[in-house]
Formats: sequence, structure tokens, C-alpha cells
Amino acid sequence: MSRLNRAPLIDAALGRTPSRPPVWFMRQAGRSLPEYRAAREGISMLDSCFMPELLAEITLQPVRRHDVDAAILFSDIVFPLKAAGVKVDIVPGRGPVMEQAVRSREDVGKLPLLETDVPEVTEGIARILAELSETQALIGFVGAPFTLASYLIEGGPSKNHERTKALMHAEPETWHMLMRRLVPTITRFLQVQVDAGIDAMQLFDSWAGYLNERDYREFVLPYSREILAGVNIPRIHFGVGTGELLPAMSEAGSEVMGVDYRVPMDAAAERVGARVLQGNLDPAMLFAGDAAVRQAVRTIRGEVDRARERGDIDGHIWNLGHGVLPTTDAEAITRAVSIIHEEG
Amino acid sequence: MSRLNRAPLIDAALGRTPSRPPVWFMRQAGRSLPEYRAAREGISMLDSCFMPELLAEITLQPVRRHDVDAAILFSDIVFPLKAAGVKVDIVPGRGPVMEQAVRSREDVGKLPLLETDVPEVTEGIARILAELSETQALIGFVGAPFTLASYLIEGGPSKNHERTKALMHAEPETWHMLMRRLVPTITRFLQVQVDAGIDAMQLFDSWAGYLNERDYREFVLPYSREILAGVNIPRIHFGVGTGELLPAMSEAGSEVMGVDYRVPMDAAAERVGARVLQGNLDPAMLFAGDAAVRQAVRTIRGEVDRARERGDIDGHIWNLGHGVLPTTDAEAITRAVSIIHEEG
Repeated sequence: MSRLNRAPLIDAALGRTPSRPPVWFMRQAGRSLPEYRAAREGISMLDSCFMPELLAEITLQPVRRHDVDAAILFSDIVFPLKAAGVKVDIVPGRGPVMEQAVRSREDVGKLPLLETDVPEVTEGIARILAELSETQALIGFVGAPFTLASYLIEGGPSKNHERTKALMHAEPETWHMLMRRLVPTITRFLQVQVDAGIDAMQLFDSWAGYLNERDYREFVLPYSREILAGVNIPRIHFGVGTGELLPAMSEAGSEVMGVDYRVPMDAAAERVGARVLQGNLDPAMLFAGDAAVRQAVRTIRGEVDRARERGDIDGHIWNLGHGVLPTTDAEAITRAVSIIHEEG
Repeated sequence: MSRLNRAPLIDAALGRTPSRPPVWFMRQAGRSLPEYRAAREGISMLDSCFMPELLAEITLQPVRRHDVDAAILFSDIVFPLKAAGVKVDIVPGRGPVMEQAVRSREDVGKLPLLETDVPEVTEGIARILAELSETQALIGFVGAPFTLASYLIEGGPSKNHERTKALMHAEPETWHMLMRRLVPTITRFLQVQVDAGIDAMQLFDSWAGYLNERDYREFVLPYSREILAGVNIPRIHFGVGTGELLPAMSEAGSEVMGVDYRVPMDAAAERVGARVLQGNLDPAMLFAGDAAVRQAVRTIRGEVDRARERGDIDGHIWNLGHGVLPTTDAEAITRAVSIIHEEG
């Protein structure tokens, strides 16, 4: 039995009627919060993910402050690589940087696999669950294999993913070998979270929106599908700039599809197989004042209602259409959550 | 009378049958070419745009090297602002940076207007035209007012355009005032190019893809439409990541719509009013080897043929679905042009 009792997020994810409109924000835990900046002082991002008490504290900060309906496990897309022994660091202002890029069959063959438990995360999750109420869900997360592959091949964050796409097209066998090598590590890290008691999970494919649908289907979809197929809790799937990919991403299999802020929710509903959508307030709106946020929330609400009336979807989880920007005023976030609870 | 006689690019833009598949690449003039890097040595980007001989040389380099069917005037989106007297510099590796951001009605009121000729550009264009053959078109270009506004408001390149969107939504009157102030400067710079003899023009709205369609229609479309309405040569309109915006951008009025690499050409053809599409090879494909380029060209060709058969479009101009990446091998570009001339 789940420790949850009528948690709005889980109800919405399963197509039941939630007691209030569930809302959480991607990157709700992070640099927008002064208490996060204080807690992380002098501790590197990836180190903090291996410190159970700090991990729990950071995950819980936005739940306490904003009254959101879910905590999202504080972690990073490259965390399972680090846990497996890959030499990677998160460089402030830049992102994950690899000591060595992975560009050949030999490199792929040497890529370490995550085959152990990750007790720090297990303990961190236990601490989080102990503090959440029975209506607050804990969402776990893993990065999708395409996004991880891009970091590995490019050696760090890339604006154009040219080496990644070149490897795909010039050496498809090496590409598929890399994807097959990443899946067990991601699956393992997800299983660690499931075993520790997360209530739902999100597969983040941050960079998928840089692919066209053809390439996504051939080089990415089978592997994301395999990861999602392995879990029996509510699944959310999200990528940025994925308007063209929603039908294909849908086929990876998830109860919930996250929608980028560029795609109207009623248009998204027509493109996906999922019965529940998540999204899609533009994170920049949190800079525009409460009146503008209220107006935007009403517009999204109208789109969602239209999609429901047409029978395209059964539910909606409120979120941004991308992550909280680090310079967002923490109080504006709290007020946006409250506006959504009123208007959503 | 035009100096051109059956130039493939102009024929295609006007829905006539070109003598060969016309191709040019956004950013074909620039850092991918060793002769460009040599010519620019020690000269700042914006300074080089004010030097007629250098401007002509840089514009012509890719035409000589790659056998493309058009030259694109070497310039920058912020050039008309600089010509008007705005203090702006292009910082290598970062982009256009403003000495002072524009964020209030007062700032907007003080923004200088371009009201003079730009003799350096006029002379540069004359030099370019003198060297082009009667089948090679010269494409002029201007940045769209939204993209210029974002640089002005953010003070430089922005990943999320949060200040720009906040101004739009929190102070719509100030926003519209800024757009009305930008239009005459852009129009003036475009007219300078038309008077000097450009054969076609492209309106670049680099950042439009960061807007949803609602905001694009309310805050951007009327101004882009006004700029395009003022010219009587073939017009191309392009922005990155604009899959959701193609119907709205179409309404701005242009013979040709540029298509981002994410949107299949046959899908784009269904979304636009324009009768001619431009695009949309992924610039990353130029890193994947000739066989992969040939395959991608054939795929695009198939999509274009389908759209023609359906009667959705009358013509096609080959291009990338975004600009040439600076690290692209110049010889791979030449070979891609040749593959397109064979397969397109």
C-alpha cells in the first residue's frame, strides 16, 4: 500500500479527480531559494546528492515554502553516471563536464555501469518521505539516455549537439551500443528510487527537442521506452522544445506527458496518447507580476478544459513549461502556486 | 529591370521552375571559412560591416568557394541599431552586448532612430553586385523587431528572454512603444539595401521560437508584417524553433517561409500560407559525412515532393534549418552544396 492517501498529484496522474489542482515546478529545489543557496554553500552540486541529510533538506525546502503538491528528488541527470564511476563534475554556470568525452566503440565499451545500490539516495528518500504528508507526493527522476549520451559525446553541455548527431548518423552501431550501455545504469538508478519509495517518476529528456522526429524514433525512442516499461508507478515524460516530438515521445509509454510552454495544452492533447498532461506556464511569466500570472493560468485552464471536453485527456498536473529560472523571486513562485490552487 | 536572368533562387522564390535546385546556407559567410577568419583578423565584427571592400569580400567568399546560388549580405541583426547610434558591441563567443539595456518608457523614448543613408553598405552592395553573375542572387537581410527588442531589453543574448517577456506582459504599452520605435529603423536599413540593388531579402527573427503563438500574434506579428509590407522584392521569413508559429509567421506576408530543421517540410507546407519553403537540412549533418548528407537531402526532397503533389507549395529553396556552425569543415559545406545540386 502506498503511504499516500488521496494525494492530488497521484489522483490527477491516474485520471481521478484530485482534491485540489496539483502543482509542482521543475527546478523548484534550487538556486531560486535563498535557503538552498545557504545549504549548498561550499558543497559541490554532485557531492550534495550523495549527502542524505542535505539531499532531503534541499528536496523539502520548496515543499515547505511554496505549498506545492509534490517534492521532486534533488538530483542531476548525470548523477547515475557519477555513481557508476564516470569522472564528471558540474561546473557552476556551465553544467556537467566530463573528464573524457565518449566518442568511439572503445570509449563506449569502457563506460562504467551502475551495478550497486546507492545507499545515500535510499537514505535521503527515507528522510524525505518521513517528512511529507499523506497528500504530498515524492517524484523521483532520471535523465533520458539521449540527453546523457549528448553530455558524454560532447563532453559537456552543447548548444547544437553536432558531435552527438554526427555519431548517430556516421556510426549508428556505435550510437546504439552507447544507448544499450546507458539503459541499465539509468534503470538501476530508477529502481533504487522506486525501492526507496518514490510515488511517481519523471523521465527528463532535456535535449530531445534538438532532434527531428525521424531521428528521435530511430535512435532514441526504443531506449526511453525500455526505461519507462520497467516501472509500475505513475510515469511523467518531459523534454523542452518537443512540440514536433509529442506523438513519438508518447509512444515511449507514460501516464503523463509534460508539455513545453510553446505548445498550447489543447494542441498538445491532440498529439499525445497519454491521458494526462503536465504543464505549461512559461517560466518567464514568474517575472511579469501576479496579474499576468493569473491571466496566463486562466488561459492554460481554458485550453485544458477544451481538451477535456473533447475527450482528449482525463487529467492535468500544473507545472511550468520548463524549469524555474535561477533568478526567479522565491516569493513570486509561492504566489504563483497559490494562484494556481485558486484558478486551476 | 533586374540584373538577373533566370537566377535559380529568384525563379524558385516566385514559383517558377529553376534551372537547378537553388541553395544557400545561413551563415555561409563567416567563421567556418579560413579566408573569413583571415580577412577579419584584428577587425571587430560590426566595424567590418562598415568597410565596403571587406563587407563585399566576406559576402562573396562563400559564393566563390561553394558555388551557392545566392550571396547573403554580411551584416548583423544589431547593425541598424549601431548605424543609428546605439552603443552596442559584438563580443566574441557571446554576441551583441548593449552598453545600456532598454527597460523603461524613458529608455525607449531615447532610443536613436536610423534616419540617414548608410553609404558604406550601399557601396558594399555595389561591389558585390559587380562580381555576381546573372544567375547568382544577392539576398539582403534585417533582424526582426522582436529579436532586436530582446537584445535591447536583456542587454545582450539571453537564454530565456525573461525580462523581454516580463516587459511584454507587465507593461504592454512600453512594449508596443518599443516595437513602434524599432520598425522605422529596420525599415530604413532594409530600404538602403533595396535601393542599392539586393535581389531578395530575409527577415530573421532569431528568437521568435521562444514565444508561444498567442504572444507572437499580439506582441510581434503586426510589426514584422509592417516591415515586410514595405518591400517589393522576394521576401523570406525565418526563425529558429518556430514549428508552432509557422501559421502566424505566415500571416506576416512573405513569398518564402524558412523552416527550422525540426519540422518535416511536408508538415511545414500544411501550416503556412507561403507557396515556397526554404530549408531545412540540420546543420549538424554537415559533421556526419557525405553519405549521411546525401541521405538527409533525399529525405527532405521526398517531403518537398509530397507537399508539391498535394498542391501545398510551388517551390523550394535549399538551405539549412539553422545557420552553419562555426566549427563546420569548409570542404564539407562545398560537398553538401554539390550533393544538393545533384539530388535536390
